[in-house]
Amino acid sequence: MSGTLYGVGVGPGDPELLTLKAVRLIQSCPVLAWPAPLEGEGLARTIAAPHVTGTRTEIAIRLSFRPERDDTDSAYDAAAETISGHLEAGRDVAVLCEGDPLFFGSFIYLLTRLRDRFAVEVVPGIASPMAASAVALRPLSTLEDGVAIIPATRSEAEIERLLAAAQSAVIMKVGRHLPKVRRVLDRLNLSDKALVVERATQARQRLIPLADAAEAPYFSLILVQS
Amino acid sequence: MSGTLYGVGVGPGDPELLTLKAVRLIQSCPVLAWPAPLEGEGLARTIAAPHVTGTRTEIAIRLSFRPERDDTDSAYDAAAETISGHLEAGRDVAVLCEGDPLFFGSFIYLLTRLRDRFAVEVVPGIASPMAASAVALRPLSTLEDGVAIIPATRSEAEIERLLAAAQSAVIMKVGRHLPKVRRVLDRLNLSDKALVVERATQARQRLIPLADAAEAPYFSLILVQS
Repeated sequence: MSGTLYGVGVGPGDPELLTLKAVRLIQSCPVLAWPAPLEGEGLARTIAAPHVTGTRTEIAIRLSFRPERDDTDSAYDAAAETISGHLEAGRDVAVLCEGDPLFFGSFIYLLTRLRDRFAVEVVPGIASPMAASAVALRPLSTLEDGVAIIPATRSEAEIERLLAAAQSAVIMKVGRHLPKVRRVLDRLNLSDKALVVERATQARQRLIPLADAAEAPYFSLILVQS
Repeated sequence: MSGTLYGVGVGPGDPELLTLKAVRLIQSCPVLAWPAPLEGEGLARTIAAPHVTGTRTEIAIRLSFRPERDDTDSAYDAAAETISGHLEAGRDVAVLCEGDPLFFGSFIYLLTRLRDRFAVEVVPGIASPMAASAVALRPLSTLEDGVAIIPATRSEAEIERLLAAAQSAVIMKVGRHLPKVRRVLDRLNLSDKALVVERATQARQRLIPLADAAEAPYFSLILVQS
């Protein structure tokens, strides 16, 4: 009998924002896997740390996170191979995922590689837009709003089209795309309603009106309410 | 010293999908408030039930949920008045909210009425799009997708504009708007990629391809992946 692959959302950073189900699976699965930079622990593992007790098999999926040297596919091929071995041996594997596993989440790489051969279950997690909205006390949407969630990596025209069609918006992965995003928001007269939220619910959380933001880290987002 | 008003997301239905923080506040706040129909308990209170222990002051915010007889403002005026009394007396109040408090959530009615006078904190919860995506094992978005979250209550033209601008979408509150939504999806050739998800993570959960869905309850949503 093969084990089950669990994609476990660990939320945005505050270890108290894990769900009861995530905690139960983290404590009961003999194998934990998590994406990580080439060195160091990785945010998902850090968030889960207070809940990891006892000895486990741990699989760090090491990624360079550099577009010019894309090792994503090879890293996930290798991780899927290792994880397959554990599942075939009947061991459940919990993959720790920042935020929610299926919302801009790298769990998708393992889902596509393993879903045809093994039982897969996803435990949803608190995603960063909800975390940012909570710490800013700004509704992500009122009851009738259309909401656009827009990766800043998209083209200027695409960002503008989505922003213009929605009543409220979240712009994700801002980082070096800040000047482009700022141009679009200026054009739509939305800049004064835009709030940059960095590392919501984490220790170094910051909230800055867009006008005052000189830069934005990759893991920041912008809340826009029209 | 006044109490704190907590907006506590209780998630989509599975009581194991509450966060640790939500459980702690539900167990420690002496006063619980929750939106409810004119009779009966209401989904938020039902979800929280396994975690409510001991004697509490409970405030049911009774709403008819009928557009033709909109009692929302008067119900929330009265609730805000009652809740103010508890906060002024130094008692913390936890408002139980289905899903996430600030994502299509009625907590906004209390936030606007009370935020100027009292400390408010929001605990984000698992929202229905993430719950639906998890039970369907369908990514809400890949790493580069623009995502539109669209209330089916909006006009046919607005729904079409948002759907056309995004790579993936969630259509919320479908209910009696199903024929309108179906027309738009047909026009954009998206109907065969649309999945109706009813009551994700609840006992009577159902997943139905749009083509096979004769109707959809109000609390269903449609996942659309392009």
